[in-house]
Amino acid sequence: MKIFGITLGDPCGIGIEVTLKALLKEPSYRREALLFGPLSVLEYYNKRLEAKFTFNVIETIGEFREGMINVVDPHPVKLEDVPIGTVSALGGEVAFQAILTAIGFARRKEITGVVTAPLNKEALHLAGHRYAGHTEIFAHYTTGESYAMLLSSPKLTVIHVSTHQSLRSACDAVTKKRVLEVIRLGGETMRKFGYPNPRIAVAGLNPHAGENGLFGDEEIREIVPAIEAAKREGYDVTGPVAPDTVFLRALKGDWDIVVVMYHDQGHIPLKLLAFDDGVNITVGLDVVRTSVDHGTAFDIADKLIASEQSMLRAIELGKKL
Amino acid sequence: MKIFGITLGDPCGIGIEVTLKALLKEPSYRREALLFGPLSVLEYYNKRLEAKFTFNVIETIGEFREGMINVVDPHPVKLEDVPIGTVSALGGEVAFQAILTAIGFARRKEITGVVTAPLNKEALHLAGHRYAGHTEIFAHYTTGESYAMLLSSPKLTVIHVSTHQSLRSACDAVTKKRVLEVIRLGGETMRKFGYPNPRIAVAGLNPHAGENGLFGDEEIREIVPAIEAAKREGYDVTGPVAPDTVFLRALKGDWDIVVVMYHDQGHIPLKLLAFDDGVNITVGLDVVRTSVDHGTAFDIADKLIASEQSMLRAIELGKKL
Repeated sequence: MKIFGITLGDPCGIGIEVTLKALLKEPSYRREALLFGPLSVLEYYNKRLEAKFTFNVIETIGEFREGMINVVDPHPVKLEDVPIGTVSALGGEVAFQAILTAIGFARRKEITGVVTAPLNKEALHLAGHRYAGHTEIFAHYTTGESYAMLLSSPKLTVIHVSTHQSLRSACDAVTKKRVLEVIRLGGETMRKFGYPNPRIAVAGLNPHAGENGLFGDEEIREIVPAIEAAKREGYDVTGPVAPDTVFLRALKGDWDIVVVMYHDQGHIPLKLLAFDDGVNITVGLDVVRTSVDHGTAFDIADKLIASEQSMLRAIELGKKL
Repeated sequence: MKIFGITLGDPCGIGIEVTLKALLKEPSYRREALLFGPLSVLEYYNKRLEAKFTFNVIETIGEFREGMINVVDPHPVKLEDVPIGTVSALGGEVAFQAILTAIGFARRKEITGVVTAPLNKEALHLAGHRYAGHTEIFAHYTTGESYAMLLSSPKLTVIHVSTHQSLRSACDAVTKKRVLEVIRLGGETMRKFGYPNPRIAVAGLNPHAGENGLFGDEEIREIVPAIEAAKREGYDVTGPVAPDTVFLRALKGDWDIVVVMYHDQGHIPLKLLAFDDGVNITVGLDVVRTSVDHGTAFDIADKLIASEQSMLRAIELGKKL
């Protein structure tokens, strides 16, 4: 049987709630999931949601038991110490230890991949771990020649040339080498998602894709050569397309995935179109990681109103990769 | 009576079609509109649409006659010379002359403002006029201490700190002075649209609005000081807000207008949300200009399938300003 991991994220947020809701909805996931996070908070939400799950806390994969919900609890905490709904060093530490432990299981091939519930960056930093987010933690503790952040929704999929850096430095990151790399990563991922010959659009960096060099020349210097090289490798690639029209055309069915040049070029349309069911995937590393596309949502923690849609899709896509 | 101008744009595109459709739909606009463009092509679409309008071609405002559709035709052409559906120097020249003439009427206060149908930039350049678009032509031939491009849809309104320039240079354009200027222009325009105390959001430039200087410091150096200064002037301003969440929150009703830092930050969400009914407004010049938010659409020219929604809203908002 193939087992996949779910890290429960910051226990003060909605991660545990949406995970249990997803397991309630999809019985097959209960058999295959291995959760990483605090048993005390799991038991709490188990009661709150009347899920009636029985948990089996394990340390090694050999202890995994079917018929129960298996859990690794690398940083046990008392429920009364967990400040639900707020930013805390404890929440950051619990989230961080869960990720590190899950990466260990994945690198030993004991689980097929990791689905991550949200962490809070501020909490992570309070706990002394200075990462911009999940992507950077995975990049640090796993290996891979190159990686990229892909956001997927049922309507639109984008993959980023750069993410957590200033817009100025994101302009510098638009190189032929990197754009080609990301076209390849996007193409290969879409093949795994069931598109034998994915149609890939590449967005320009500048307004109107530079209008033939009138507003910036990164398209001419870097992006066009990368597209030409990708075509020679057999990819079905179009571009550079004007950034303000490429998403509407992709939505209408012209393309399966859009290669975007910077964080907000991809995040603005995705977040507008897919608030509940977006999935964030780090592609190119030796550990497959998919994630919900929402935050810890401290403001609605413990209210039992969070949607499990994004978690369900994150698990579904993770299993395909 | 207040008369407003409509420039018919490139006669090879859909401008004349959508203008006549808008006049068919709103009888009051027929009395108040003064069209700028070629009579020959107007007569052609008048027949095609079975509009049965009678045109009164005039050279000076004194000749304006109610009960007819009044037209200024500064660059007459023969219908058989107009290559409908294609890019041409003729189309660019006709569009350009219509704009120049309309600006003259507006600066003499003979019309209250100008609504523009689309032109094609390539055609404009073929005709020898090297402007990036309408905004730049108006900026050149009118006066105003500062101006900005505002995009409005029924769902979302944005105003741009910069537009037609490279993304790199757009980063340089984010200065305290300019951001404050655009907050003021946005605030004043929204007041004219009927919001006595508009709620203004200012987007960050960098991902997550720079995350306290972690990914770029333009927020700290330029945007925050501009917001503080605007608050002291009495504006209701919030920000800098993360660019990938500000639009969803504005849509949900948190703000009336979003100040965006560069062309695609505003154009990507607007074009996704408002394909048919977006309006483009140049604010801050001594001539009020509103415009449809679509292009010449040569591919559907002469098919009578173009929507007049954007033209109707452009006229409606133009009359308010």
